[in-house]
Formats: sequence, C-alpha cells, structure tokens
Amino acid sequence: MLIEPYQLSATDVAGKIRDGQLSVEDYAKSLLARIKGRDPVIKAWAYINPEQVLAEARKLDEVPMENRGPLHGVAIAVKDVIYTKDMPTQFNSPLYEGDAPQVDAASIIILRKAGALILGKTTTTEFAATTEGPKTTNPNDSSRTPGGSSSGSGAVVADFQAPISLGTQTGGSTIRPASFNGIYGFKPTWNSISREGQKIFCLIFDTLGLYARCVDDLNLLADVFALQDDKSPSPDYTLKNAKFAFCKTMIWPQAGPGLVKAMDKAVDLLRSSGATVEEIKFPEHLQDLPKWHQIIFNTDGRTAFLPEYRVDKTCIADQLVGHVENRLKISRAAQLKAFDDIAAARPVVDAMLAEYDAVLVPSVPDEAPKGIESTGSAAFNGIWTALHNPVINIPGFAGENGMPIGLSLVAPRYHDRKLLVVSQAVGKLFETSGGWKRQSS
Amino acid sequence: MLIEPYQLSATDVAGKIRDGQLSVEDYAKSLLARIKGRDPVIKAWAYINPEQVLAEARKLDEVPMENRGPLHGVAIAVKDVIYTKDMPTQFNSPLYEGDAPQVDAASIIILRKAGALILGKTTTTEFAATTEGPKTTNPNDSSRTPGGSSSGSGAVVADFQAPISLGTQTGGSTIRPASFNGIYGFKPTWNSISREGQKIFCLIFDTLGLYARCVDDLNLLADVFALQDDKSPSPDYTLKNAKFAFCKTMIWPQAGPGLVKAMDKAVDLLRSSGATVEEIKFPEHLQDLPKWHQIIFNTDGRTAFLPEYRVDKTCIADQLVGHVENRLKISRAAQLKAFDDIAAARPVVDAMLAEYDAVLVPSVPDEAPKGIESTGSAAFNGIWTALHNPVINIPGFAGENGMPIGLSLVAPRYHDRKLLVVSQAVGKLFETSGGWKRQSS
Repeated sequence: MLIEPYQLSATDVAGKIRDGQLSVEDYAKSLLARIKGRDPVIKAWAYINPEQVLAEARKLDEVPMENRGPLHGVAIAVKDVIYTKDMPTQFNSPLYEGDAPQVDAASIIILRKAGALILGKTTTTEFAATTEGPKTTNPNDSSRTPGGSSSGSGAVVADFQAPISLGTQTGGSTIRPASFNGIYGFKPTWNSISREGQKIFCLIFDTLGLYARCVDDLNLLADVFALQDDKSPSPDYTLKNAKFAFCKTMIWPQAGPGLVKAMDKAVDLLRSSGATVEEIKFPEHLQDLPKWHQIIFNTDGRTAFLPEYRVDKTCIADQLVGHVENRLKISRAAQLKAFDDIAAARPVVDAMLAEYDAVLVPSVPDEAPKGIESTGSAAFNGIWTALHNPVINIPGFAGENGMPIGLSLVAPRYHDRKLLVVSQAVGKLFETSGGWKRQSS
Repeated sequence: MLIEPYQLSATDVAGKIRDGQLSVEDYAKSLLARIKGRDPVIKAWAYINPEQVLAEARKLDEVPMENRGPLHGVAIAVKDVIYTKDMPTQFNSPLYEGDAPQVDAASIIILRKAGALILGKTTTTEFAATTEGPKTTNPNDSSRTPGGSSSGSGAVVADFQAPISLGTQTGGSTIRPASFNGIYGFKPTWNSISREGQKIFCLIFDTLGLYARCVDDLNLLADVFALQDDKSPSPDYTLKNAKFAFCKTMIWPQAGPGLVKAMDKAVDLLRSSGATVEEIKFPEHLQDLPKWHQIIFNTDGRTAFLPEYRVDKTCIADQLVGHVENRLKISRAAQLKAFDDIAAARPVVDAMLAEYDAVLVPSVPDEAPKGIESTGSAAFNGIWTALHNPVINIPGFAGENGMPIGLSLVAPRYHDRKLLVVSQAVGKLFETSGGWKRQSS
C-alpha cells in the first residue's frame, strides 16, 4: 500500500524533505486534501487557509538546504489560544472574533525558526478554561468528544490531518484529548518551554502541551524546544529489569471499567517484559491535592479574566464570570494555603517518583464519553499539572466500545528526556499488545 | 501660584475632568508641553506620538459622562515591555525595533476600559532583564541613573511628565527606580494583576508595578485593577499605637550611609508618632533567600530568551545569551531546590509579617549612583519579589548628595489594600519630616 505524505510522522516527513524525496508544497497538498475530506466530520479547525499554507510551503521550498532547521517543512497545528502572527487567534470567544494580533507566541517563534509549517489554528473550549466542547468530533467515533480543551489539536493528529500539534494544559487539557483520541500527549515540566503568547488561565499551572502519533516526533519537538535533563538519558533502554511503579491516585474511585482493565493489562504487560512494577500511593498528607488544584483553578481566573469581564461580561462563559466575581467565595487565605501546600508537595512527589524509571498513572476515567457538549472528566490530570511533573499519555488500550484509552507515565520535574526514552519502550509495548489499534487512515 | 494640569495627581485630574473643569485635550496639551520641554534632558520615552495622544484625548472628550470609567482622561505611561495595540513595543531590543503587534496587554485592556489615556511607552533595560541603563536620566540630577529596569516609567512620574505609570519587577525593577526618583512605587502581590502581554523573564517572579507621586493615585489604580484583601481595611488609620517592625534583612552589609541614616530616622519618626517599632530578622534557615532568588533569576532566562536566541543571538545582550546557554552551569536540581525553598519560605515570611501593620525594609543601598550606564543595585529587592509580598516604596529621605532615598513597607501576600492604607499615613510622615522634598516642577 502506498503511503500518502499526510500519513507520515513528523520525523519521517522531515527526513523525506531533507533528502529531496518530497517537496514541502506536495506535502502540504497531501495534508490539505486529507483535511478537505475529513473536516466536514471532524471540524477541528478554528482557522485554516489553504492558499496561505501553500504559499508558506512554497516559501519553505525555496530556503537553501544550509539554512534549514530540524523541522523544515513539517506541518504543525496550533491550538487557538496561542498567538500566530499571520492568523487570527480567537480563543473560541466572541470577544476575540476575527482578532489577529501580529505577534507570534514564543513557541511559534521557535517552531518557525526550526522550519515548521504552521498549518492553522485548532479548536478549543473558551479560553481553554471551560468544559463546554467546541464543534469538534472524535476521529474514532464522531458521536463522541475528542476531549478538551485542546480538542482540535488532539483530533487533527489522531485523524492524520497534521503529524504534530500544540495544546495547553491547566487541568487535563493535553492528556485527556490524547487518551480520548488514541495519540501521544506530552505535558513537559512547567516552564521548561516558554508560555509567552499563550492565553493565561492559571499562571502556576498552565503548560504548553505537545501531540504526536509516535514518541520519535515528541523527541524531535523536545530537541527543538531545547528540553534538557541534568543527565542526558541513554537511548539504549529496555524494559527488561526496568523499574516501574503504578499509582492509582486518590481519584481511583472515579475509574471506569475501561481504565481498570487498561491498568491491569498494562501492569501485566510490563511485568511480562521483565520489568518490576510495584504499587505506590500518595502519602496521607497529600490526599487533598485534587482539592488544592481546584482551589487555584477556581481563584486564578479572578485575575486572568478581569480584562474580558470588564470589556463585556455578557460575552464570556458564566463559569468565567463566576471566577472573576469569586462566586465560590474562596478567601485569599485559602487560595494561598492551596498554593503553598501544592508547592510543598512538589519535592515530596519528585522524591517518590525518582525511585522508578517512570510511574504509570491514569490519564482519564474511561474512554471518551458520548456527545460533544462536554469534553469529559479531567479528574486524573489536575494533580500532575499542579505538581509540574512531565506527563506523557501512551495510547494502546481499548474501552468497552472499542474507543482508545491511554495511560500516563510521569517522572520527576526536569526528567523530560528520560521520560521520553522510557515512553518509547513502553509505547511500543502498549501499542503492540494493549488491544487497541489506530485505524489506518 | 497657578497649578498647571500636568502637575496634578491622577486623582485630582480625574476629579477635574469628571467635574467638567478640564478637558482631556487641554490636559494632554499641558502634559505634552511639559514633555517637550523636559525630554531633551530626561529622555524617558521609547515611543510617544503627540498627534496620536491628542487624537485619543479628543476621542475621550466625546465619551458621554455615563460611559466614563474611574480613570477617564487620566494619562498613564507604559513601560516598553508591555503590549499596547496602537504603539510599538520594542523591549529596548534591536530584534524588536519598530515591532508593533496589534494587541493590548491585560493591564492595558483594563486601563483603557477605565478611561485611561495611554501616553506612550517608556524606556527599559533590554527586556527588563539587564542592568545596562537606557539613555534616561534622573530628574533630580541628570548625571545620575533613574534606576531600572523601569527607568522611563520612574523618571516620567518624578518629572511630572505623567501622573502614573506602569513598570514591572523581577529583581528590583519597580522599587529601585521609585527610590532613586523620589516617588511611590507599588509592587502588588504576585499574580494579583494579570501579567498577560508583559514580556516574560522569570514567570514565578515577574510582577506588574505601579508608580505615582501619592498613595491616593495608587489606591485609584488598585481599584481599577480590583485588588482586594480578604478583609477590607478601615481607611481610618493613624500611626498612634500602630505596630511596626523594621527588618534590615541579610543584605544590610551592603547598606550605604544614606540608607543607614534614612532607616534610623524613619524608625525615630514612627516612634515619635506613637507607633511601636521593633526589629525583626529572617530566621536562620532563610538567610540564603537572596541566593535562591539569584538562582531562579539566572536559570529562568534559559526558557524565556530561547526564542530571541534562536532568531539571532548576536542581537541580544551577552548576559541573556549566558542565560540561554546556562553559562553558570546551574543544574536543574539546583534550580528546583531554589524554587522549592523560596516556595516554602513564603508562608513563613507571611506569618512573620502578619504580626505588624507593615514592616519597614530598605529599598536600595543608597541614593542613585552617578552615571547612567548602570541602573544600580537591586540587592534589597529580590527577596521580596521572590516571596510575592506586596511592597511599596515611600519617598521622603535624602542621601549625602541630596538625592532621594525611599524605604519600603511590606505586608503579607494579598494584604495590598491594608498596605496602601498604612502607606498613606507613613508617606505623609516621611514626606513631611524625612528631610527630602520633591522639587516643584
């Protein structure tokens, strides 16, 4: 079977363009055709202009070989809460309809300099801060949500409309769509990639997220964004004699049958591969971590959405009006206590995670629920966002309806590269033997 | 003596415009004449367009009374690291020369909605991240630095070219210029005002700062930015029986004769006013706070300046290249330890400060040094920036050369409004009896 360019991973397409086997223009045409065919169902784009994409592609084809970066010609989709100087940034908010500030986010500057082809902007919940889904559907079943808030970025990668994309995460906005769509989602250590030009919700949580269909592509992006551990991990990593833990977390009572089955199977698979896997639990004094995350989640919007509230509060979601008005009447003292308690938890949890190559944790309660009105539960994600740890969703398992379910690997802060190496091996195992297979495009 | 409009405080000018005694246009003309006369010496503007200011002023004059906000017609100067959609934002960087993204920072959206007249952009050190001064001089002595990095914003308020202005602080960039110029500088609690659209240096430290010549104006801005304590302080506050502490901090060995004298006098003045004043010290385990601040200061740029480094590292200051390249070879582990140690210190220091109405601390080692090449020492400021506490510089004292020296009041996090009430009373005392008087304009 002939592989179409749109089916290629970022790594493969970068190689083919570098070797002169594929022009950026032909690559762009292949993607645009795929998008044209699929968009009526998936509806993942907030903005895409095929003429503009082709013009950019042609410009990239004209760049001399010696001036090309590691992502030369590779297409990337960008969540519509991140500024791109040549496209609108609308935050799924009527207040910003058609708004197009001529500025690139820090991440976009870095991507462009590396040669990336910015395809377009992908759908999001309002300001990446609500759970009301945009129009986007799940590529595995269009009657189901692709998750959120990075709805479009998750869906386009799963649907071969882009090999890689940018999301963000404040609650579970990167990891949840990764699991629901059956792709890799990577939330790196907080502040390891600049968040400049990315809409603020909770300053201490918001993190840029990365999507791909393989770990190689995440590694490519990690290089571009200069992610570095103190000690570069050896790429020669095998699961034989590897040391894992799994942590069901205090959220486990919310686990559905799909998650329970996936977790059991994952542990079995790792053990069958020669790894040791033990169960670990959060210490008693950290059982309220989810509550602390929620307190910050419900108080930081008081600052973040004041501008929009002042401009026209009738044009922002009631939930956000509630944040600004502090409708939950959370005191500054309670806010600070949550902020400080989370901060104190970070080194404790890092030490707990550091005992293992990586720790396996749930990504979502179960497969993507029916309907696109709600983006589903982020219950399992908030703690890791609050703790700043790098998290990678690994696809490979299936729920009762055959929808994908992923599991996450987490590592201590600034062990992003080690986590990628471990995820490479674990991903291969789960994708091969987990029971769920990505539909060929 | 006739008071010219440019001499008015923000509070007074807001009142006169509200009462119809002054048009915004006439007010703007008065300020522009002042600026024209003084700019050749002070050089505080990175961008100002008199025609544009007058056009904006006329537009504001046309707004019906019922649609006017609390800052209607009040002029404000904006540090050139904060986006303004109708003016360039250049960061004192050749990479951004003439760059004008059509977007307002969150603070600017809020100010415009309140009716403020954005005058122009004020000078800064490069990206507010170096200590190499821009061309700006100190209004009290043009052979001396106005401090930095908010050089222009401090100078224009001191020089009656604007009643209020926006600065930022990551080390001492708001408080140091306030002290050097003899004005009030207010660094509110971290993240109590959105930093969206303000260049990132250290995400966990960067704070929007506010300048004014009186506390009333800071209160006006605090209202506009919706700063709120858990318990609104009573405005009826007197120094009689008030409870203060002073804290020389672990930086005291760097104190010059001007600071030593100011601190002694301040304590005497407070005691003479009927307040109790006791000395407090940081606990032993927090003596390294300045070092922890410096570690973050020297590592966060690794993330923040990667875009500019990638675009053209020959066009950014060598110090910033050093940040990106981690020239100091600070490990991620050391960075995290500093991050976590500071976080653990916050509630400890809050509890220490909570015993008092406010705590008096140094703003700067001494009066503004000679020369404009360096913006002076921020040694006394970093700890409070790291700790997230609200800080207000109170002017009123003089150094050996008659230059102003201020002292700071600090309070626990989210006690900004209480700090303003206390600063009102203390400011009156220091300005009356401290020994330094602002030159009449």
